[in-house]
Amino acid sequence: MKAAIIGGGVIGGGWAARFLLSGWDVVVFDPDPEAPRKLNEVLANAQAALPALSDVPMPDNGSLTFASSLQEAIHGVDYIQESVSEQLDLKHRVYAQIQEIAPNTPLGSSTSGYKPSQLQEGARNPASIFVAHPFNPVYLLPLVEVVPSVKSDEKLIEKTKGILREIGMFPLHVRKEIDAHIADRFLEAVWREALWLVKDGIATTEEIDEAIRMGFGLRWGQMGLFETYRIAGGEAGMKHFLEQFGPCLTWPWTRLTDVPEFNDELVDLIAGQSDAQSGQHSIRELERIRDRNLTGFLRVLKDSNWGAGRVLLEHDARRRAATPAPTPETAAPMVMAHLQVLPGWIDYNGHMTESRYLFASSETTDAFLRYIGAGMDYVAGGHSYYTAETHIMHLGEAKLGDRLTGSVQVLGADEKRLHVFIRIEKDGAPVATLEQILLHVDMAKGRTCPAAPEVLARLNPIRDAHAALPKPEAVGRHVGQRTERGKT
Amino acid sequence: MKAAIIGGGVIGGGWAARFLLSGWDVVVFDPDPEAPRKLNEVLANAQAALPALSDVPMPDNGSLTFASSLQEAIHGVDYIQESVSEQLDLKHRVYAQIQEIAPNTPLGSSTSGYKPSQLQEGARNPASIFVAHPFNPVYLLPLVEVVPSVKSDEKLIEKTKGILREIGMFPLHVRKEIDAHIADRFLEAVWREALWLVKDGIATTEEIDEAIRMGFGLRWGQMGLFETYRIAGGEAGMKHFLEQFGPCLTWPWTRLTDVPEFNDELVDLIAGQSDAQSGQHSIRELERIRDRNLTGFLRVLKDSNWGAGRVLLEHDARRRAATPAPTPETAAPMVMAHLQVLPGWIDYNGHMTESRYLFASSETTDAFLRYIGAGMDYVAGGHSYYTAETHIMHLGEAKLGDRLTGSVQVLGADEKRLHVFIRIEKDGAPVATLEQILLHVDMAKGRTCPAAPEVLARLNPIRDAHAALPKPEAVGRHVGQRTERGKT
Repeated sequence: MKAAIIGGGVIGGGWAARFLLSGWDVVVFDPDPEAPRKLNEVLANAQAALPALSDVPMPDNGSLTFASSLQEAIHGVDYIQESVSEQLDLKHRVYAQIQEIAPNTPLGSSTSGYKPSQLQEGARNPASIFVAHPFNPVYLLPLVEVVPSVKSDEKLIEKTKGILREIGMFPLHVRKEIDAHIADRFLEAVWREALWLVKDGIATTEEIDEAIRMGFGLRWGQMGLFETYRIAGGEAGMKHFLEQFGPCLTWPWTRLTDVPEFNDELVDLIAGQSDAQSGQHSIRELERIRDRNLTGFLRVLKDSNWGAGRVLLEHDARRRAATPAPTPETAAPMVMAHLQVLPGWIDYNGHMTESRYLFASSETTDAFLRYIGAGMDYVAGGHSYYTAETHIMHLGEAKLGDRLTGSVQVLGADEKRLHVFIRIEKDGAPVATLEQILLHVDMAKGRTCPAAPEVLARLNPIRDAHAALPKPEAVGRHVGQRTERGKT
Repeated sequence: MKAAIIGGGVIGGGWAARFLLSGWDVVVFDPDPEAPRKLNEVLANAQAALPALSDVPMPDNGSLTFASSLQEAIHGVDYIQESVSEQLDLKHRVYAQIQEIAPNTPLGSSTSGYKPSQLQEGARNPASIFVAHPFNPVYLLPLVEVVPSVKSDEKLIEKTKGILREIGMFPLHVRKEIDAHIADRFLEAVWREALWLVKDGIATTEEIDEAIRMGFGLRWGQMGLFETYRIAGGEAGMKHFLEQFGPCLTWPWTRLTDVPEFNDELVDLIAGQSDAQSGQHSIRELERIRDRNLTGFLRVLKDSNWGAGRVLLEHDARRRAATPAPTPETAAPMVMAHLQVLPGWIDYNGHMTESRYLFASSETTDAFLRYIGAGMDYVAGGHSYYTAETHIMHLGEAKLGDRLTGSVQVLGADEKRLHVFIRIEKDGAPVATLEQILLHVDMAKGRTCPAAPEVLARLNPIRDAHAALPKPEAVGRHVGQRTERGKT
């Protein structure tokens, strides 16, 4: 399958990337000599992001070519997407040239400013022209508003929606054409309100962004407007919410004052649609779904130290500072990590998933390496300890919310090797033990080398102190050696 | 520290939960006899969600008590949060009673409808009354708009912001009071626009929610409005964006038509604030940050089969159906899993993190168990294979985007035991091998038992076929047995 992308800016480039990564061949026409460079930058972004969403192998990328003329670009393609500047006469000229050659090929426009009936004016075949309005970044966000007019060919629209699904999008069929379609009407309302707030000195752009991304933006990313308010209505649902907030429509809460009349008819219409949309879930269920999604979003932001995630990291840092970790006792197995089992760590058995025991151990080892001076600064200098080998014994079960500790016993160490025994414990009893060999590596050369003297100066006294500790039974055993020790 | 929560509905309950889980004692006053039940439901939700955001151990929960009078509730507390109905005279009566006893205690109101100067009217000590407007669910969303009036005590406001940070929130100091504060002005603008769209039959509540959560809602949850548009302006930034979209203000894109004059002064004001906010990042950096956040959000939604995540799951399912997995060849190690290394699997060395090798192996084993009829349906019946013991050899490095396969060789099996060797390979060469013993378990009894005959009927022929395969060298070895095989 092959798509023509007419106009290769941010939006056209996003379309090209989505088609290419979905295995379509793509031919781009854009007279801007900078177009190939710009498009390759978008493509690099897309290549780094879109495959991360797939749990099945991605198809091989399609081929990308740049055409030297519009005619050449549309030759033999299955789909055409137009993303040229928002000038109606320019779009009309482009469509006329396209339809001389390919009057029946689906021709979608990325326009946010024009309705399909305006795009179709004077066209040879209006029936194949429609709005397919995507959202930046096109290669990641699923939404595409598909807006036909009364002149559109229904079969062609259905075929187009199939194509858009095939490249991973969510085609929202807008049933009545309207200026700015649907989503941009909300964006424009908020934009206008925001301009007032900045102009009147109520808030800065940054304060406005915080007001959105620390609060309702997170709600909207997973439920939108009405489903969120359905929950806010509590056990009494949407109708209760409407009764509670109906009166606000006449209050000066925005500069938007031309409001619809708030009568029973409107209440019934909205409450009925909301029931049809979400009525299969109880409010409690919706709350749990919402909280799970929000928790996930917030964890993502915490991983990238961004937005609301930065608030969480700073909060952790304050708590950590308020209760500093005790200096570990080096004469005994050293407790290096305190963990709590998170929802994403649970498998379908309801237990902590197998790989998280190794994760807990890694957190423990990492903390130990930081303690002996081989943390991230040391890694940045080109050296690191790599795990060569691990033996895990599963001895118990950790469940959601359990608090675990990870301790390190040094079994042996020389300049290049570190042999450790890790206990992951719950309430003082091991749920897993791990025996590991780590090797000290020169990362650039990819081979072992002696650790830095200052690291060994921290490590060796611990090794010597631990030499007096009893050797754990699990050390030196191979898999299956004594199965009665397994988790039975 | 102790907080009084006056009004124990959805919002008051959310406040109570946040304080309690942050280690504060909480006393609630609400004359509704249902209040304790409702509050305990909110608390159960919060308990299931908020701890998942913390990477340091949570403090022990504070104690929760219900007071039989307002006077009793506020006795000796450090902070008072009022969340009663949105009736100004009711709020005034509550404040008068509170300030008879505790005129100097910080007294925040959850109001969205009233300005602080309205709340302060007629108060004994206006200086200690202010707006602290949170967002539902209060126990998860960080945003709280703190709005003082000119009569407010600056020190008390700063102290309050410290308290709110201490319970994990993001206090947004609203510098000039205005109806509906900041965030609700946007919510109200969108709400009014949405009511028109429903009333005019343009879109249903469900279509409107999709228009938000499949597209810009995801953007707003991490960057808000202006930072998103800064990126949309491309390399030329905010000023370019403003010049491009300025004219739309006069277009009928929303029913909100009372727009500010779009002049150079406004452009400079906004572009300058945007530079101050995000100018430390290049547009390319912002794009990468955005894409990483969006990818994370989408993965979260995919995990919960919700919103945009459902689109991704359906897309995977279509692809999987289009290219069905080949029936594995049972006479050789059976390739059971195809994986691609995702951004969240990478450690600070730039390599796939240690625990993900075991994760890849688990995916492989799970697929094998499904193949022999011991998948999720079987687990639902009360039986499962649990891993007892694992030995991992790290032999190579996987990096971001690498495609990996996981294969299973059955080393041995009887009614209760399954002994397997897993190879995780990249380009046909192993990056890790894993030897494992799994035990068949009656989950309710917590002990081993024979697998179902139909499972053994699938498993035993594979075991017999694999008996002819050469035994891998790594089998039966213990940690450190031959270090020259380590990852050097």
